[in-house]
Amino acid sequence: MEISVLLFNDFETLDVFGPVEIFGRRNNHYSIKFYSMEGGQITNNHGVSVFTLPINQLLAHDVFLIPGGYGTRIEVDNLVLINKIKEISTLAKFVLTVCTGTALLAKTGLLDFKNATTNKRAFEWVVSTGKNVIWNKKARWVVDGKFYTSSGVSAGMDMALGFLSDLHGKDFARNIAFEIEFNWSEDSTLDSFAIG
Amino acid sequence: MEISVLLFNDFETLDVFGPVEIFGRRNNHYSIKFYSMEGGQITNNHGVSVFTLPINQLLAHDVFLIPGGYGTRIEVDNLVLINKIKEISTLAKFVLTVCTGTALLAKTGLLDFKNATTNKRAFEWVVSTGKNVIWNKKARWVVDGKFYTSSGVSAGMDMALGFLSDLHGKDFARNIAFEIEFNWSEDSTLDSFAIG
Repeated sequence: MEISVLLFNDFETLDVFGPVEIFGRRNNHYSIKFYSMEGGQITNNHGVSVFTLPINQLLAHDVFLIPGGYGTRIEVDNLVLINKIKEISTLAKFVLTVCTGTALLAKTGLLDFKNATTNKRAFEWVVSTGKNVIWNKKARWVVDGKFYTSSGVSAGMDMALGFLSDLHGKDFARNIAFEIEFNWSEDSTLDSFAIG
Repeated sequence: MEISVLLFNDFETLDVFGPVEIFGRRNNHYSIKFYSMEGGQITNNHGVSVFTLPINQLLAHDVFLIPGGYGTRIEVDNLVLINKIKEISTLAKFVLTVCTGTALLAKTGLLDFKNATTNKRAFEWVVSTGKNVIWNKKARWVVDGKFYTSSGVSAGMDMALGFLSDLHGKDFARNIAFEIEFNWSEDSTLDSFAIG
């Protein structure tokens, strides 16, 4: 399966590379490709510059990963991008969002009347982007059908492991966590950063 | 201060971008730059391609960050790189290594008779690269003077927060962990992945 990662300027570093580390550990099962609207180098405010393919070259519709970051505050009003996200997310077998990346997916309407979560530190803003979404205030990540949404930044790693656990069994995910010496929060309902 | 990150092909994704996320959160204090021997795009087996500057342009000698990954198995025998690492590490105020990145630093001899740790899953190989190093089998990260060495992959984030805690106080580090919803292992001696 291909993990198709959406990048835009001022994406959040760990939202992308936490899950990429986890999927990359099983690159016999998962190949990872990075896309942006136009392709080329995409940069962020952490000094990172990553090469991407133009999103029109995204032909695999397996797993679509949408990160968060400051860039989402601008991109949420970029209707060309939002329409592209809607098109790809409709075709994808699974859609995974990290942190405020959930706002971009919510804006498409595809999360309406579905359960989802997001960063607890940016909760009100993300909620405002999808008023018909059933927002979970206490969850490390939430699964509703093919949509996986995670809480803030580092929770993307817990969600990625949860996704692999759902598809391949708990030991598959636990072995990856062990290899990278990561204390995986296996229980998605335990959320020490919850609000309200 | 500048965080000067060394990249080489087949670096480990999270070894780099875990600490980058943490330092990037305080980009008013820390600017992050990526270097490789020749500069240009550096790639790894997770499909990541990052832009780097040629290492001869590294002029700040504040914090030098050396990641691990499969690439270290080749680079440990690249004496031009090892000599460059020795030169920069000698000048740097602080040197931080993640995972098997410790092998590259050990190979320079600068860790001789100093305390250090590394990935517990690749321990024997790293030990073989620095026989005079005092290797700690149980530690999330180890500090000896200006040298910070961490255990495997995700431990680099715990170490980066430990480093910031040492320099700016525990609350400075805790606030970053809170923002990125990361369960920081504050105690460097607690290591659930320890061996022996």
